[in-house]
Amino acid sequence: MGKKQIGILGATGYTGLELLKLLEVHPNFEVDFVTSERYVGSTLQEMFPFLAGRKTGTLQFIPLSEALTRNVSGVFSCLPHKTAAEKIIPFIDKGETVVVDLSADFRMRNPEIYERHYCKHPKPDLCQTATYGLSEHYETEISKSKLIGNPGCYPTSILIPLIPLIKKDLIELNGIISDSKSGVSGAGKTPSPVTHFVETNESFAAYAIGDEHRHLSEINEQLSLFAKQDVSVLFTPHLVPMTRGILSTIYVTPKIGVTKETILQTLSAAYEKESMVEFLAESLPKTSFVSGTNRCMFGMKWANNGKNLILVSVIDNLIKGASGQALQNMNIALGLPGNTGLY
Amino acid sequence: MGKKQIGILGATGYTGLELLKLLEVHPNFEVDFVTSERYVGSTLQEMFPFLAGRKTGTLQFIPLSEALTRNVSGVFSCLPHKTAAEKIIPFIDKGETVVVDLSADFRMRNPEIYERHYCKHPKPDLCQTATYGLSEHYETEISKSKLIGNPGCYPTSILIPLIPLIKKDLIELNGIISDSKSGVSGAGKTPSPVTHFVETNESFAAYAIGDEHRHLSEINEQLSLFAKQDVSVLFTPHLVPMTRGILSTIYVTPKIGVTKETILQTLSAAYEKESMVEFLAESLPKTSFVSGTNRCMFGMKWANNGKNLILVSVIDNLIKGASGQALQNMNIALGLPGNTGLY
Amino acid sequence: MGKKQIGILGATGYTGLELLKLLEVHPNFEVDFVTSERYVGSTLQEMFPFLAGRKTGTLQFIPLSEALTRNVSGVFSCLPHKTAAEKIIPFIDKGETVVVDLSADFRMRNPEIYERHYCKHPKPDLCQTATYGLSEHYETEISKSKLIGNPGCYPTSILIPLIPLIKKDLIELNGIISDSKSGVSGAGKTPSPVTHFVETNESFAAYAIGDEHRHLSEINEQLSLFAKQDVSVLFTPHLVPMTRGILSTIYVTPKIGVTKETILQTLSAAYEKESMVEFLAESLPKTSFVSGTNRCMFGMKWANNGKNLILVSVIDNLIKGASGQALQNMNIALGLPGNTGLY
Amino acid sequence: MGKKQIGILGATGYTGLELLKLLEVHPNFEVDFVTSERYVGSTLQEMFPFLAGRKTGTLQFIPLSEALTRNVSGVFSCLPHKTAAEKIIPFIDKGETVVVDLSADFRMRNPEIYERHYCKHPKPDLCQTATYGLSEHYETEISKSKLIGNPGCYPTSILIPLIPLIKKDLIELNGIISDSKSGVSGAGKTPSPVTHFVETNESFAAYAIGDEHRHLSEINEQLSLFAKQDVSVLFTPHLVPMTRGILSTIYVTPKIGVTKETILQTLSAAYEKESMVEFLAESLPKTSFVSGTNRCMFGMKWANNGKNLILVSVIDNLIKGASGQALQNMNIALGLPGNTGLY
Repeated sequence: MGKKQIGILGATGYTGLELLKLLEVHPNFEVDFVTSERYVGSTLQEMFPFLAGRKTGTLQFIPLSEALTRNVSGVFSCLPHKTAAEKIIPFIDKGETVVVDLSADFRMRNPEIYERHYCKHPKPDLCQTATYGLSEHYETEISKSKLIGNPGCYPTSILIPLIPLIKKDLIELNGIISDSKSGVSGAGKTPSPVTHFVETNESFAAYAIGDEHRHLSEINEQLSLFAKQDVSVLFTPHLVPMTRGILSTIYVTPKIGVTKETILQTLSAAYEKESMVEFLAESLPKTSFVSGTNRCMFGMKWANNGKNLILVSVIDNLIKGASGQALQNMNIALGLPGNTGLY
Repeated sequence: MGKKQIGILGATGYTGLELLKLLEVHPNFEVDFVTSERYVGSTLQEMFPFLAGRKTGTLQFIPLSEALTRNVSGVFSCLPHKTAAEKIIPFIDKGETVVVDLSADFRMRNPEIYERHYCKHPKPDLCQTATYGLSEHYETEISKSKLIGNPGCYPTSILIPLIPLIKKDLIELNGIISDSKSGVSGAGKTPSPVTHFVETNESFAAYAIGDEHRHLSEINEQLSLFAKQDVSVLFTPHLVPMTRGILSTIYVTPKIGVTKETILQTLSAAYEKESMVEFLAESLPKTSFVSGTNRCMFGMKWANNGKNLILVSVIDNLIKGASGQALQNMNIALGLPGNTGLY
Repeated sequence: MGKKQIGILGATGYTGLELLKLLEVHPNFEVDFVTSERYVGSTLQEMFPFLAGRKTGTLQFIPLSEALTRNVSGVFSCLPHKTAAEKIIPFIDKGETVVVDLSADFRMRNPEIYERHYCKHPKPDLCQTATYGLSEHYETEISKSKLIGNPGCYPTSILIPLIPLIKKDLIELNGIISDSKSGVSGAGKTPSPVTHFVETNESFAAYAIGDEHRHLSEINEQLSLFAKQDVSVLFTPHLVPMTRGILSTIYVTPKIGVTKETILQTLSAAYEKESMVEFLAESLPKTSFVSGTNRCMFGMKWANNGKNLILVSVIDNLIKGASGQALQNMNIALGLPGNTGLY
Repeated sequence: MGKKQIGILGATGYTGLELLKLLEVHPNFEVDFVTSERYVGSTLQEMFPFLAGRKTGTLQFIPLSEALTRNVSGVFSCLPHKTAAEKIIPFIDKGETVVVDLSADFRMRNPEIYERHYCKHPKPDLCQTATYGLSEHYETEISKSKLIGNPGCYPTSILIPLIPLIKKDLIELNGIISDSKSGVSGAGKTPSPVTHFVETNESFAAYAIGDEHRHLSEINEQLSLFAKQDVSVLFTPHLVPMTRGILSTIYVTPKIGVTKETILQTLSAAYEKESMVEFLAESLPKTSFVSGTNRCMFGMKWANNGKNLILVSVIDNLIKGASGQALQNMNIALGLPGNTGLY
């Protein structure tokens, strides 16, 4: 039986390139096309010489118009927000293609929340149709979906430890703080003062603190859905002088009467059968533990006699925080085990 | 008028070497001796070739016993805790020498707190005599002191933004969280798995979280002294893949009725006349802003309509967090302006 | 058909851990045992928490004595030199097990050369028996061998570009210079001043220059074998503040009358059919091109009208420079395509 | 006696900012003005918040037209090449102002060489008038000059070890190779793919190898002037994942009969009285030895029984390789010791 054909829209950024690497060794998928308006006619290895000698290296960039004529099982969109929603409609309209969108366009159920942090939503009616692609918590929905909004990197690192605790009503919903730290690849490939080596190397900075970061609305919406009431997190992102990795230090207050053992058992049970999430109990991961992998690892610390619970989670922002989870979602949506071709 | 003579005990670690660099360009101080039991007879540049051609490069390490015979105005102790307290007694007993101790031995007023996190205190009676060397808040005391316990690096970054708010009773004393991040030089010069380049580079980690880090007792004691009641902070240190710098993200709750303007004015007024602390109001510093300097810079963010106040402070851990502040204290104790020879 | 069983001697260093990662996803091999005298009885994930949840994570370290009772198809030795030669003899004596030794013990045909740079050779008679595991140039020999001396990292990066030119007699054998640069993982896992983050970060250094580095004898012996006369290279290793990667800048003099086209065609033809070596003609690779892969990429520059030829090659020192090439050799020796399970 | 007033043209790049830091602590100079066409009216600390609280922080950018009306003793030009030559003419025409130009415009005596690598020279007649600012080798000329072309960073690191050997005719002029490695700040402040953190971190690359780099003409012209015949060096620059520092590994051939002792004595004597150059004999520096200083340190290795001599030199590319040497030259031209205010 042949491999399923896959297309990638906008493959020249970090998430697109990471997808290409992952698909190069995937046992069931094959890249049929990659689009780029700017580089039409060039091969991938002409633009990205590290692909010389790779299967995908000889693919030629095609324009979106040509991509629409191809028959593929799945399409990843690595286009920026707004453009993504606009350009993937024809693929969705085909009815048979699974679309995993790595932009923010279909991460939120409520387009008004989207519009508060991004821009006017190009297809607000699709927001309810789309599935939120946090693989471990929406697997059933993803398996039936044709449009998956792939989660943001920070939200992935924050939601995985929190959702099981919120589902079981074990923690206070007020006063949750996530002090999160990300490597520089999260800032994207476009050169800017922020991503300049000299500005970032040997320095550490907070940014977009308080109520400012776009991912906050996504975090709050998901936590609210699981809590069945409004949850509002205090979220402080920081920039770490390294290429890959996110670590979130999450401060929560256990409800009165909740014991450490209950927390440990709940988190352990929640991910026992998941191969891509690893709960380390009372030991703590560092970002290098998951670098180059699609895994989320997290541990916890019971502090001040249970007045505080600190959760520490790590992911590789380009894999579990983007392209890896997108592939996990595509696997699920196309009937494969979620971890196929993922490590 | 000649320069004042200065001695350094245990000059071969990072704080000792940093002191040597600072003293090399100090207009009023001159290094008279450096001690090392291991390297007696070697010159500094034999051990540290980057000192070749420097004034201090040709100094020979002498043993402590010989150091005691020298007449110096001030002595810096860069010895490890416990050893420090034991070895500096004879210098204190001379009565005329100012001793600035960079270990933890004289940071705490209450030796019991010290003993909880370190070991049996070798000279508990001296704890009350010693002055806590947070230069901007103990300047008068330092100017009269012969024994100064130089603050820890994390406490310096945390106390400077918090003390003015606590003195004016503007924030809740419960629930203060400091999520702090430090470069690797804070872990000292002894090679270990934690400081191995490959383990630390391209990784980010939390450590000693909850109630574990030794600096916590120092932070809590100082805040309690200024608050005149017990304060207990939640403190989470992290390791950043960079050499120098600490950034503390501090979460506090303003008291009801306290406005943003009051906070801004209080912090601005507190450090208006201080050349080594810079309050940036609502803009935020990154660690590179103060790298290589003796300055603390900090800013604030008023979040969730004043439900939360986030303070972000930065220092160079080896300078304002160690050797620079030690020199600032020595300046003050020997009658010079605190910032003499410091940048 | 089941997977072939594989053992690893001394799996706790960087090359051992890298092998474990590679074997985790290998389609035909399975780790049967890992040895460690120090950690007997511990599981791999107890020592290396990033392995939690991995197949290999639950393996228990066994002592060498027990390893000898196991029936495996292949054994990798990640033991240090001298110990390696001593400990692998019983596996070789079994006659059926392929041993790939990652130490220097069987890299040289001539034990006297070994003894000049290392120590007395524990099994000098085996040196002639062993095969030098530069996969692309000794494939036939490796396929018949039971004892393979896996090449050093620097030699791999230097020999791959040079051997085809020497075989065709296109360059002068005098005056070859390799100015090579390596990431810190090449210095091994034992903490030392050289591998201390603070000593190495934000610094760049030459070391062991001139005639000093041990790898020089391996480079010279191999080049001499292909040249059928003595070749002596000037080799200068440097330490780069990064974890992985080697780049060698190699200066050679083309023989009079040799054209650029001849060089280009020779190098292109030499590696046309090799999936793990990529010749980039007149464009140049950087180390990140091959990071995390088993590939060597190299390019060239024709300078001063052909008076000089500069070759620039890159490898990941832990993969093509160590564990990856070791696996490539094991594949070949056990009848599989060399690139099985390698990327 | 008041401080001498100094102006800076184009102070917003890395060399301008480094000059500001150096001038902040200079005992005899004071910054009178800084120009920027883009930021006219802004203060320095508005653009560069790390200058908050500094003397220079409150200076306002003025346009060049206004700068011409100021009376200053010296002007540093940090403008890009071509613009520099055009804009500094009026300052030179004043006849009393010392101009140190940090661009390439006045580094070469022969404008034709300049035009080969840069562009049409805007003031070719001034090339002969200008002094080459390699402080240690042109001190007398600099002390009488009103126009100083400040050397490039790579040339500084290469010329300092080579000039004494060439002056004494101790090495072959053919076949000199400089394999040089630079931190990323050498690539300037404008964001680009090359300076993007993710592209450069954890990677090492050669660039502009062979006959391509602009600095090659400057190196060759200077060596030829000292050799009194044409010298042509093979120069290979590389990019190191660090902010600051250059290390040059220089391969030369001693002339027949020249002994190691002669080389050692010559280099030692050449810099014996220089406080900013340190010859380490047979030990080797790393870039961190000189980071943050205006020093060049270098050592040597006698290899292959004297067939080869390897010189290894280091500088901080932003200080001795740019702003520090510029200040050293200004010191000399304004009658101060070269090392005034420099460390």
